[in-house]
Amino acid sequence: MRKILLLCLLTAGLRATAQPVASPLTARLDKVSLTFALAADGQPTYAVSYGQRPVIKPSRLGVALADGKGFDGPLELVGSETKNVDETWQPVWGEVKSIRNHYQQLTVHLRQPQAPGRLIDVVFRVFADGVGFRYEWPSQPSLQYFTVQQERTEFNLTGNHKAFWIPGDYDSNEYAYTTSKLSEINSAGITPIQLKSAPERVQTPLMLKSDDGLYVNIHEAALVNYPAMMLNVDTKTFGLTSQLVPSATEAAAYLQTPEHTPWRTIVVADNAPAVLASKLILNLNEPTTLTETSWIKPQKFVGVWWEMHVNKSSWNYSDATNLKLADTNWDALKPHGHHGANTANVKRYIDFAAKYGLQSVLVEGWNVGWEDWSGNWKEEVFDFVTPYPDFNVQELQQYAAAKGIKLLMHHETSGSVTNYERRQDAALRFMKEHGYDGVKTGYVGRIIPRGEHHDGQWMVNHFNRTAENMARQQIMVDMHEAVRPTGLHRTYPNWLASEAARGNEFNAWSEGNPPEHETILPFTRLMGGPMDYTPGIFQIKLEDWNPAKNQGKQVHTTLAKQLALYVTMYSPLQMAADLPEAYEKHLDAFQFIRDVPVDWDDTRILTAEPGDYITMVRKAKSKEEWYLGAITDENARAQTLKLDFLTPGLRYEATIYADGKGASWNKNPMSYQIRKQKVDSKSVLKLQLAAGGGAAVSIKPINR
Amino acid sequence: MRKILLLCLLTAGLRATAQPVASPLTARLDKVSLTFALAADGQPTYAVSYGQRPVIKPSRLGVALADGKGFDGPLELVGSETKNVDETWQPVWGEVKSIRNHYQQLTVHLRQPQAPGRLIDVVFRVFADGVGFRYEWPSQPSLQYFTVQQERTEFNLTGNHKAFWIPGDYDSNEYAYTTSKLSEINSAGITPIQLKSAPERVQTPLMLKSDDGLYVNIHEAALVNYPAMMLNVDTKTFGLTSQLVPSATEAAAYLQTPEHTPWRTIVVADNAPAVLASKLILNLNEPTTLTETSWIKPQKFVGVWWEMHVNKSSWNYSDATNLKLADTNWDALKPHGHHGANTANVKRYIDFAAKYGLQSVLVEGWNVGWEDWSGNWKEEVFDFVTPYPDFNVQELQQYAAAKGIKLLMHHETSGSVTNYERRQDAALRFMKEHGYDGVKTGYVGRIIPRGEHHDGQWMVNHFNRTAENMARQQIMVDMHEAVRPTGLHRTYPNWLASEAARGNEFNAWSEGNPPEHETILPFTRLMGGPMDYTPGIFQIKLEDWNPAKNQGKQVHTTLAKQLALYVTMYSPLQMAADLPEAYEKHLDAFQFIRDVPVDWDDTRILTAEPGDYITMVRKAKSKEEWYLGAITDENARAQTLKLDFLTPGLRYEATIYADGKGASWNKNPMSYQIRKQKVDSKSVLKLQLAAGGGAAVSIKPINR
Repeated sequence: MRKILLLCLLTAGLRATAQPVASPLTARLDKVSLTFALAADGQPTYAVSYGQRPVIKPSRLGVALADGKGFDGPLELVGSETKNVDETWQPVWGEVKSIRNHYQQLTVHLRQPQAPGRLIDVVFRVFADGVGFRYEWPSQPSLQYFTVQQERTEFNLTGNHKAFWIPGDYDSNEYAYTTSKLSEINSAGITPIQLKSAPERVQTPLMLKSDDGLYVNIHEAALVNYPAMMLNVDTKTFGLTSQLVPSATEAAAYLQTPEHTPWRTIVVADNAPAVLASKLILNLNEPTTLTETSWIKPQKFVGVWWEMHVNKSSWNYSDATNLKLADTNWDALKPHGHHGANTANVKRYIDFAAKYGLQSVLVEGWNVGWEDWSGNWKEEVFDFVTPYPDFNVQELQQYAAAKGIKLLMHHETSGSVTNYERRQDAALRFMKEHGYDGVKTGYVGRIIPRGEHHDGQWMVNHFNRTAENMARQQIMVDMHEAVRPTGLHRTYPNWLASEAARGNEFNAWSEGNPPEHETILPFTRLMGGPMDYTPGIFQIKLEDWNPAKNQGKQVHTTLAKQLALYVTMYSPLQMAADLPEAYEKHLDAFQFIRDVPVDWDDTRILTAEPGDYITMVRKAKSKEEWYLGAITDENARAQTLKLDFLTPGLRYEATIYADGKGASWNKNPMSYQIRKQKVDSKSVLKLQLAAGGGAAVSIKPINR
Repeated sequence: MRKILLLCLLTAGLRATAQPVASPLTARLDKVSLTFALAADGQPTYAVSYGQRPVIKPSRLGVALADGKGFDGPLELVGSETKNVDETWQPVWGEVKSIRNHYQQLTVHLRQPQAPGRLIDVVFRVFADGVGFRYEWPSQPSLQYFTVQQERTEFNLTGNHKAFWIPGDYDSNEYAYTTSKLSEINSAGITPIQLKSAPERVQTPLMLKSDDGLYVNIHEAALVNYPAMMLNVDTKTFGLTSQLVPSATEAAAYLQTPEHTPWRTIVVADNAPAVLASKLILNLNEPTTLTETSWIKPQKFVGVWWEMHVNKSSWNYSDATNLKLADTNWDALKPHGHHGANTANVKRYIDFAAKYGLQSVLVEGWNVGWEDWSGNWKEEVFDFVTPYPDFNVQELQQYAAAKGIKLLMHHETSGSVTNYERRQDAALRFMKEHGYDGVKTGYVGRIIPRGEHHDGQWMVNHFNRTAENMARQQIMVDMHEAVRPTGLHRTYPNWLASEAARGNEFNAWSEGNPPEHETILPFTRLMGGPMDYTPGIFQIKLEDWNPAKNQGKQVHTTLAKQLALYVTMYSPLQMAADLPEAYEKHLDAFQFIRDVPVDWDDTRILTAEPGDYITMVRKAKSKEEWYLGAITDENARAQTLKLDFLTPGLRYEATIYADGKGASWNKNPMSYQIRKQKVDSKSVLKLQLAAGGGAAVSIKPINR
């Protein structure tokens, strides 16, 4: 003990006797500049500018502790350092082959002026496309174990920007986006999915556009051992204040020094494509510690899944209700006869995947417990190892292996995370024993431990621990109903994707996703990482599957737009979400899904405007092939695109999957046309996007 | 769905059309009678009498649900049944070889008069020594998943009884007992161990004595999937009301039909020994489902444990603080040199156990994490598999095995139960791989999941699940800081003991346990099951171990009383808690600990009065040997005991371990004398117990 105390006193001493530091302090890279200052009252503040234009006006920094002796009052500046970093790194998979990490770092050492004189640092990293900063607490005698009550970080915006927002529900982000002025933010009229939020609280990533054309995105990076940050909006002053998701005790985070918060991120650009191209959030995450990553395989999959959403089959095996996991004789249940995850049906999907070159088959509803799985806040719902009587694990293992197809496991937790945690080791052993190397997890419903939230510290730790546990077992994971990503797929490249937003599935059983939805997601949810959006619905009108139950239901899209999403919504794990029979009616269009890669050497954002349209082109990993996706909102649009990204001198054949004559998302969504065209780097491509439509283009070299 | 609904309607129909049932309803066995009645307002009530004497005056029954449509208002009586049961069963281990289960059962079917017309049953079992009753909820369409907000069970006592009570702390029962009139119950002046309680709330088992000489004990049996019950005391009317320990959400229990509460138990007798002899609570528990129990071994053990309490060594290995489990290089820590669980020291205990015929050695502090293990509400404290550098698992495994000694594992959770649950499978595998077949668990500190309590439903389920999980692995368990037992060792005979009360250890570092403490425990804590009290301290004055740190500390007992506790405090798992060097100074007295069994054919309570004295004699399992223990409170007492329990015609040698001349717990605690005496069934034994003293007697047949 003596030695440690001495060391800490020495450290404090060094800081106290360092050269007095004048405030303000600044850091800058290209057009982005950051200013740190102590306000007249001693309150630390920061501000961000882009060129001459302010982005964040002087805004307070602070963290309140539960013991009342936190960092939400005046602080003394006891030192600072800067450093410059310019490096490149290669992700295991992703949108580009190589990523530049170039920033200037400013570290500010602060101390409480009165006893106990606790220390806190704020570390800023200024990139060409924005700023990241976080709070850090060094080891110190007066701060070892501590509880964060709330964070007091402000983002004071410069005006009444246009905002793309969803309500600040602590347990769900599966909302359609509202586009409004900051002054109009109010979620009182929006039906809560899980938890009613304060009406002026929104989630991140929050996409903003100023009247003078600045695009600003506020989120966080590397959410580890801390709750997610939401934002309280002052609709009069346009100030945002951090709102940490509380734990069951209302306090936000239980910490131990040395510790730091996630990075608070502000991406800023004068054009929308630059926001989509930003790698700021990934750069602020830690590199993976995995040295062997060959088992991590970006992939496309089909699944026994959409057929349940369209009421052709069901997750549950019987019509029984009120069952108890341990007390039920599952073999004796009377089947209702339309259970999706039966051996014969799964074989049909395996056959399809094998025939058309997809890698894997997801099967939901394979394991017992689906009869009354949701909505009861029940601890023991699933055991993750017991199949329904009509799902033959061994037979399917052999069948899939013989055809070179992997089965994807499904672990729905029903929000009962304590149950999942105590069974997770056994569940992963079961997977390895039966040939599974990937799993989709789900967290539908209220969390157990009761009182905890999906986006609170305890669950954040669960998600990260699960990714880590699975990495140890060489298992890939796709998390549904998880906290929204913050770039942790850099650290855990086996965490291929998450849902954590309103996916395509909502079209099957709600008012659906408006045509603009997919033009907003890349600017919001996808800023943090890949989404398992489940594109590729070909049978757009859902009544055809079950006229009685699906009346009026459709996907709010044209068929061609569904193809374009494989390019515009990056994920290393992409589902071909529709049923095999839907694809077999349109094998010409399905060819694009067969061709499109899930891992890329390069990505270019050709045009983009949140809420309106996005056009991207990507180069396949280690191949001279390009894939282009263009989508629009409810408005038809023409796009004229220069193909100057192609390698000069090479000739290519473009296959264009476009909206057909008279196509529109609501009136004629299935109309599409496919044409081929020779192109080179000097070509100009004209695309006509229908209302709610899109286009997908594959561009492959000729004579190779 | 249709079929199930129909079935339920039929059931309801049957009940509704059954013969109208007149209230009151009664049940009786010997002197104990039970009356159920609907009060004028429709409220269900019950009353209990013993002979002509009322024990429980008409008292309300009820359970409030979170949805407001519970069972705390008027109910209709729709039917009833009675049955008589008289059977005997054999426990796997225990105080007696065979147990009679004799009761009359009255089942009362009740229904809400208004919609939704939910059903609830109350089942009473009337024994010769008291009453047990519980609420049961049958399967029914209008009640499947439900949340108990609070239970409204009353126990209206007949007068201002003497009570032996501890405060209603939801997280600890490690209190000294207060003896007072009901009207004087007030814990405001008692320092809370974990959680401040309402001043007039007490825990069960609550021991009561009426002015007219009735002994009444209120507790519960078979606490499964439900929170522990505490009691709110009305100090004016002498009414007790159930208080269920809340969950993190404040609601008490999350249930699913069919379900039932634990049994509420009222043991009643006109003499104190009959309370100690009662098997009512055990009888109300379910038989074990284990068919193979030969691996369950009642045993005596020593341990690297008391030496830490008396400041001779420590649990932790170094003086470092503020460590993190995953980030610490434990091998690189600088040892402080007085770590108890080092290989050489453990070998010393193994040698001692082997030399003197004890079965096992507990080692605490063997695993990393003890540097700052407690008090920080920290999730990742221990991993249960990583030894400190000076504890050689393999070497000790071989050493112990060669000497025929078992090592007992230690799993301190520090209250971080989510951490323990997710690591428990790996921890048990580690045990099996290294030859451990028994474990002492610990739950010091606030519970994680944060907001849950030691005695709430979630933790109750954890304790039971742990016992079950360990039974599957053929592992015996001794739980410290667990919820107090309710007879579940009948169901889980591998759950050998719990702490769940103020053990001998308090003498080492607090004001200690008053001499009366062990005369109360059998009437309170032990009513539910065996306690790992850790008797057998020979070095009574603790200053001798460490004069600086143990100033004034002593065990509040004489040495002879420590021996008597092996008889008066039944457990199949008994520690010889002192250090080997303490025993080696008094091997003549230690002979009693070597001899005394931990499993019995028979038990007789010769004399007893809570708070004053207890004398018991027990017959060894399958052997014609008897062991007698007599203890007293702070008052010296003479006991004249007829040995008429001995087999007539047989001759025995009694070895009497008595308080020595001038002995007293505070002035001369180490004075003891050992004498031998020939006895038979006509003998009378005179024992002189010193203040705070006791006597232990082994009685073995001659010429066998």
